[in-house]
Amino acid sequence: MQIELITVGDELLLGYTVDTNAAYIARELAALGVSIVRRGTVGDNAADIVASVREALDRTGAVITTGGLGPTADDLTRPAIAELFGRDLVPDEARWDVLRALWQERGRGEIPLANRSQIMIPRGAVVLDNRHGTAPGLWLEDERHRWCAMLPGVPREMRGMLADVIIPRLTERLGDDRRVVRSRTLRTTGIGESALAELLGPDTRDVHGLPLAYLPGQDGVDIRVTSRALGANDTDAALNAAVDELRARITRYVYAEGAVDLASVVLDVCESRGLHIAVAESCTGGLLGARLTAIAGSSSVVLGGVIAYSNPVKEQMLGVATETLVRHGAVSENVAVEMAAGVRRATGAEVGISITGIAGPGGGTVEKPVGLVWIAANVSGQVRTHGSQFIGDRAEIRYRATQAALDLVRRMVSG
Amino acid sequence: MQIELITVGDELLLGYTVDTNAAYIARELAALGVSIVRRGTVGDNAADIVASVREALDRTGAVITTGGLGPTADDLTRPAIAELFGRDLVPDEARWDVLRALWQERGRGEIPLANRSQIMIPRGAVVLDNRHGTAPGLWLEDERHRWCAMLPGVPREMRGMLADVIIPRLTERLGDDRRVVRSRTLRTTGIGESALAELLGPDTRDVHGLPLAYLPGQDGVDIRVTSRALGANDTDAALNAAVDELRARITRYVYAEGAVDLASVVLDVCESRGLHIAVAESCTGGLLGARLTAIAGSSSVVLGGVIAYSNPVKEQMLGVATETLVRHGAVSENVAVEMAAGVRRATGAEVGISITGIAGPGGGTVEKPVGLVWIAANVSGQVRTHGSQFIGDRAEIRYRATQAALDLVRRMVSG
Repeated sequence: MQIELITVGDELLLGYTVDTNAAYIARELAALGVSIVRRGTVGDNAADIVASVREALDRTGAVITTGGLGPTADDLTRPAIAELFGRDLVPDEARWDVLRALWQERGRGEIPLANRSQIMIPRGAVVLDNRHGTAPGLWLEDERHRWCAMLPGVPREMRGMLADVIIPRLTERLGDDRRVVRSRTLRTTGIGESALAELLGPDTRDVHGLPLAYLPGQDGVDIRVTSRALGANDTDAALNAAVDELRARITRYVYAEGAVDLASVVLDVCESRGLHIAVAESCTGGLLGARLTAIAGSSSVVLGGVIAYSNPVKEQMLGVATETLVRHGAVSENVAVEMAAGVRRATGAEVGISITGIAGPGGGTVEKPVGLVWIAANVSGQVRTHGSQFIGDRAEIRYRATQAALDLVRRMVSG
Repeated sequence: MQIELITVGDELLLGYTVDTNAAYIARELAALGVSIVRRGTVGDNAADIVASVREALDRTGAVITTGGLGPTADDLTRPAIAELFGRDLVPDEARWDVLRALWQERGRGEIPLANRSQIMIPRGAVVLDNRHGTAPGLWLEDERHRWCAMLPGVPREMRGMLADVIIPRLTERLGDDRRVVRSRTLRTTGIGESALAELLGPDTRDVHGLPLAYLPGQDGVDIRVTSRALGANDTDAALNAAVDELRARITRYVYAEGAVDLASVVLDVCESRGLHIAVAESCTGGLLGARLTAIAGSSSVVLGGVIAYSNPVKEQMLGVATETLVRHGAVSENVAVEMAAGVRRATGAEVGISITGIAGPGGGTVEKPVGLVWIAANVSGQVRTHGSQFIGDRAEIRYRATQAALDLVRRMVSG
């Protein structure tokens, strides 16, 4: 099954909001073997909504939209698509009573009249319940079984509705025709796309007959092989062979398989060895801690740490020697080493990870340019350091520093 | 001028990478008065690239693409669009010598042969220099002056080329026809979209004749008014009147105007009063520190802080009393108050901000459900607290907690 996705909203088109829904929906549907074959974004403009949905229906007959179902006057998806399908809008008064009660139950007082637009239902539409909000989704289908599912744009609401309603409906439709589409992805870090391609052979578009994709991102380069076959057994055998072949050539750069964050890999490997982590962060200012604690269950491994942004905090809370700061500067291997040891002392963690660097855009010198970062890991007294010259803007340098720090710990603790 | 944007890449279509380039380009072009009127995403597939660019050229005659210019075999934008314009690809050997030298200069050894695809230039194309990488951009134009600019997909490279080449070229083309399109945006937090709409009048689609857009996002709801006029004076007067009207109705929720992060507002207001900040974070694990230090120049205000994820760290590094933890629990107003005071003592900062809560998905109880967060701000001994029950997943709860903490400090320090 092939689906097109259309995301609606001035905030997307104007670049005010980054469209995370599109990526989320694509990943969820890929797991069913359903491909998003094309994606479009239009503004809060009825004519553009109608034109783009019509074109997509003509190509694939299956369209999901997100956004434009809210209570305000710039929410136009519902009336625009009702018109495209030739249906009028009918108020659902029972739904109004439910909404009103819900509003009061949440202690939000009388429901604004603006929300009445959300009970206007196109004739013949299936109403899709919204567990997390007031805007119901809608499913319209014509006599040729071409359909358009309208989901809200608020990520939490969209995600709930996708799981509760859309995926079960699509699974049912797929029935026995379901082709087995499976892919496996190896995640690498610390190596660039063309160097990886060189290791794998420069013209490699497939491995053992399975197409290969390079997916560069902020974490590093991911490599994916995909199989589309009729039998599950053939699929698994082909994927296993391809992944073995890939691993054989690039194993030292691979930190995980599948949609796994490096922070999660580090937590798992530390947990399995009974190790606790504390962080000591200068230029990343808490980002490494935030990445580790973004993962549910991290409290069994992460004790905490120190954001040592200023030099006095490095001295007083981490015990970095004044002399080390004066002689080598805050961005130096020596200071990184003392920070990692200091945070272990302060927290009792077996693993101390430190980062000190120049995130820019200011503060660089000829000797210590913007992007220079020193990292140290202290695992029960064993110390390794890593100095890098990252390229990119402030956000990229900071993120890459956390990724390199996590990879240093992974390599040390894994063996 | 109206432009369509097409982003190319399996990683985008499959949801592996969130498309941040599209939002960035839209914002940059909006500042010129150029609108992205529609956006599409296709995979690494020559037929889909050709079809989508052809349709967009037919609608607007002006297309920007990103992605698919890399060195690997799945990078197909260059040959696909060359074919659409009926041009063959010619190797540029001088460019190969430059690339090779650049590669060696960066200490990366001999350039992989895979990169030779990047010197294949469609006949008649303008080559757009890439300050940050090896893939040059390309500009193709037909005899009817319909054009397609191809930019790399790597954000840093795309951004450099947009600023260096594309914006100057578009500005020149706009010439005197340039319509004055300006918008102003008020950022609000702590209030929902429909409650804001209620304050502004439920059917309000414009203010003083200027169209109004609600832009809900993770920071809160932004409200934007836009003017498209021929004279700059009229534009400014209309926008001023509209913004004054909006501010009069919702001023207490407005924390900034324009693309300004709340963390930046807090840094500015503290800097102007000579105040320094330290953070004490439990459930957010460093995210508040990371947000504050994401802003260049934050080191003049932020001293650092403590990630007090475990209770012993709360006691030892922040001086939270064991009795307070036992009697009230780690997620409590009392603990938040002691954390904020403790981080002030430990760092010497005038402003201590603390967050303690249950980010979920586990760890909730009937009395203290997932999403419960206590925040305290201690400004030179004056203390305010704020308890919230946030909805959303772990990431949303954590982010919202940092936003609420920053807003609490903003309100206290601003007066």
